[in-house]
Amino acid sequence: MKGKDLTEHCVRGEELYGGRFLRLQRDVVRLPDGSETVREYVRHPGAVAIVALLADGRVVLERQHRYPHRRDFLEIPAGKLEPGEPHFETAQRELQEETGYVAREWTRLGVIHTTVAYSDEAIELWLAKGLEQRAAKLDAGEFLEVLALPFGEAVAMIRDGRITDAKTIAGLLWVRVFLDG
Amino acid sequence: MKGKDLTEHCVRGEELYGGRFLRLQRDVVRLPDGSETVREYVRHPGAVAIVALLADGRVVLERQHRYPHRRDFLEIPAGKLEPGEPHFETAQRELQEETGYVAREWTRLGVIHTTVAYSDEAIELWLAKGLEQRAAKLDAGEFLEVLALPFGEAVAMIRDGRITDAKTIAGLLWVRVFLDG
Repeated sequence: MKGKDLTEHCVRGEELYGGRFLRLQRDVVRLPDGSETVREYVRHPGAVAIVALLADGRVVLERQHRYPHRRDFLEIPAGKLEPGEPHFETAQRELQEETGYVAREWTRLGVIHTTVAYSDEAIELWLAKGLEQRAAKLDAGEFLEVLALPFGEAVAMIRDGRITDAKTIAGLLWVRVFLDG
Repeated sequence: MKGKDLTEHCVRGEELYGGRFLRLQRDVVRLPDGSETVREYVRHPGAVAIVALLADGRVVLERQHRYPHRRDFLEIPAGKLEPGEPHFETAQRELQEETGYVAREWTRLGVIHTTVAYSDEAIELWLAKGLEQRAAKLDAGEFLEVLALPFGEAVAMIRDGRITDAKTIAGLLWVRVFLDG
């Protein structure tokens, strides 16, 4: 992208917190006008999310409790990359672990950045078709319920606020707009 | 949503870090099977994002450096709520501060949750039309470039990966799918 240079340069940085799940970084940066400010942000390993379409036109969703919001969400299957794991393997692994489905056809749709101001998280969106049901194998401490809804009904749930998760909105509307789903 | 109870209950919690911009919370929670685990998450004041449409069919975008990714992003105008500030006022304030535009017609589209696993952030999406150009008044330390692109071109930039910001994808595709934008 051309135009004026808006780059912020790292002056010094430190890891503020390396938790069980989250790593928080705090850097002092130099702004375009030469002044300094602080940038605090989450360091994330990256993730995948999967729009899994059944032959009958339904899409696979999960109901999962999300503690930061103290309530359940309807989401497409998703999960974080293990160290060194390619995105495609993560997509296959997470779909089967969480939902029990394996897919014959995989298409990479694109990437989304969930919260650019304070996290380096990137989620690759994948489309999975040709689904076959196997056994799910949830991680210890992972609790969720798998369901499948007609694709158009899931899209309608975005409009009426029953689906609000950003990766799920991006994945479903991506398929609707660009793949005529 | 019915089905089995997936609720996680807080056992105890503490604020790990209260920074200039980010607050990080760490709670011990009881899972549905009675075991305990840790939830670390960002506490966010909430935000708005605005799909601002010009009479000629262009949409207002901003180019902004996002330090966690060490690069610029194209995004719709957005900003955080001030304490006690209603979403609609934030939307009006941020649109004018960042882009200089004021709008005659405002429509609330819905809400998105950007990263449900580790942040309580909610972004209200608004549509703004009837735009009139005034003077922008950026906050100190805020650097961005305002541009306007044909709506269809912005949508195409989602498909080809030039727009990857989740709130921007959600806002533009929302208008495309539900408002025939």
